[in-house]
Amino acid sequence: MEQLFVIKIGGNVIDDEENLAAFLQDFTSINAKKILVHGGGKIATKIGEQLGIASNYVNGRRITDEATIDLVTMVYGGLVNKKIVAKLQSMQCHAIGLTGADANIITAVKRPVKEIDYGFVGDVVKEKIGVKNLEALLVNNFPLVVAPLTHDGNGQMLNTNADTVASSLAVALSASYNVRLIYCFEKKGVLENIGDDDSVITLITKEKYQQLLHEKKLFDGILPKIDNAFEAINSGVKEVLIGHANDLLQNVTANTKGTLIK
Amino acid sequence: MEQLFVIKIGGNVIDDEENLAAFLQDFTSINAKKILVHGGGKIATKIGEQLGIASNYVNGRRITDEATIDLVTMVYGGLVNKKIVAKLQSMQCHAIGLTGADANIITAVKRPVKEIDYGFVGDVVKEKIGVKNLEALLVNNFPLVVAPLTHDGNGQMLNTNADTVASSLAVALSASYNVRLIYCFEKKGVLENIGDDDSVITLITKEKYQQLLHEKKLFDGILPKIDNAFEAINSGVKEVLIGHANDLLQNVTANTKGTLIK
Repeated sequence: MEQLFVIKIGGNVIDDEENLAAFLQDFTSINAKKILVHGGGKIATKIGEQLGIASNYVNGRRITDEATIDLVTMVYGGLVNKKIVAKLQSMQCHAIGLTGADANIITAVKRPVKEIDYGFVGDVVKEKIGVKNLEALLVNNFPLVVAPLTHDGNGQMLNTNADTVASSLAVALSASYNVRLIYCFEKKGVLENIGDDDSVITLITKEKYQQLLHEKKLFDGILPKIDNAFEAINSGVKEVLIGHANDLLQNVTANTKGTLIK
Repeated sequence: MEQLFVIKIGGNVIDDEENLAAFLQDFTSINAKKILVHGGGKIATKIGEQLGIASNYVNGRRITDEATIDLVTMVYGGLVNKKIVAKLQSMQCHAIGLTGADANIITAVKRPVKEIDYGFVGDVVKEKIGVKNLEALLVNNFPLVVAPLTHDGNGQMLNTNADTVASSLAVALSASYNVRLIYCFEKKGVLENIGDDDSVITLITKEKYQQLLHEKKLFDGILPKIDNAFEAINSGVKEVLIGHANDLLQNVTANTKGTLIK
């Protein structure tokens, strides 16, 4: 099967113009099918403040009321997405910027209200990922740049976590591509010693993971990331790489940087 | 050659939710390749005011400073474009929303500063329209929804008039498609008698145009629209239709509404 890279970047890359340019140059250099999923960055909060829309988080999730879904649709789907796409064009990378609504690629359901009403937050409906339309775009060699927004199929945009968007796309496309899912974050990889930034664990297999858990070597924040990685692998993704955005190109062309999970 | 419809709607359709829904239902019903180009509507001005960005017009054109290009990128490329696309998905019309930067479809040059500095306003570079990429999307039967935004090829988004975006796309695609360019506006067509909304002139040929000009029958505001229509036709577009958005479906399936220019 042909190789496909699904790469997720967060706010720390987006908010720094120079960092972003270097990252996009690396992304452009990848000579394979590729999808970039981006988060929102601090700009949504900043513009929200100017518009008098307060950011309201519960358990690390933004509560998305009506004003907020319009805000993130503007900022993630418009400002951030097009800034990235225009920059990529200048590097001769002829990407298409998308939200989950475009070409019906990601349908979600509005999260049911239990103890907390998250508002217009969408949980991806895996079986409704628009695989055929995604393939039609990828076959034409369009690199895709996807904002963390979905739609409910009834005309409503929804706010969806960028990590989830990335893993949902990776899993759905793993039937037709050999998918490597790459999470860029602020560390160089999963660290053996939280105090030592260079103590990157190069490879984590299921056995190694059990051993690391047993030895209580993994710091708390990394556990959900590794759990998500194994979930993606159990659902068909070939491998998951966790590393720093600056190391992207080396991550892609070899396995010399970051933590590979398989 | 296969038929292609390029349809432009302005703020009067976008600003009214009910009008927009009816229009999009008609757009969905068109059983042919289709491109919808939308303007911005009043929402950009409203959000601009909330953000403290004053709207500044000279000769009917918005002066686009740095804050304003970010504003219109958010509002046209994000909010308005995705609102339309999400609504179309609910009608089973699996459109892709684009700006001129996406898939490199419309490159423009920043308007040179003469007496007036228009700021980040882009004049379309006709020979750089991304015909091949547009065709790749149309061949896959994706209806396209295009915001009035272009890019300069060096990473900068630019603000471009929606009428110009529509005619530029229509002309560039006329080599591969039999193109009908449709301008929706607030009247039912070109009127023989400005005081009578039903006095629509059904057909304007070059000869008829000369005659109407000679008889001084045409009201001022319509002249540039007819001139633009003939310019498009002289550049390859098969016909231009000017009419009311409510009459769209009849316009498309027959010639019983609006003014046809050929």
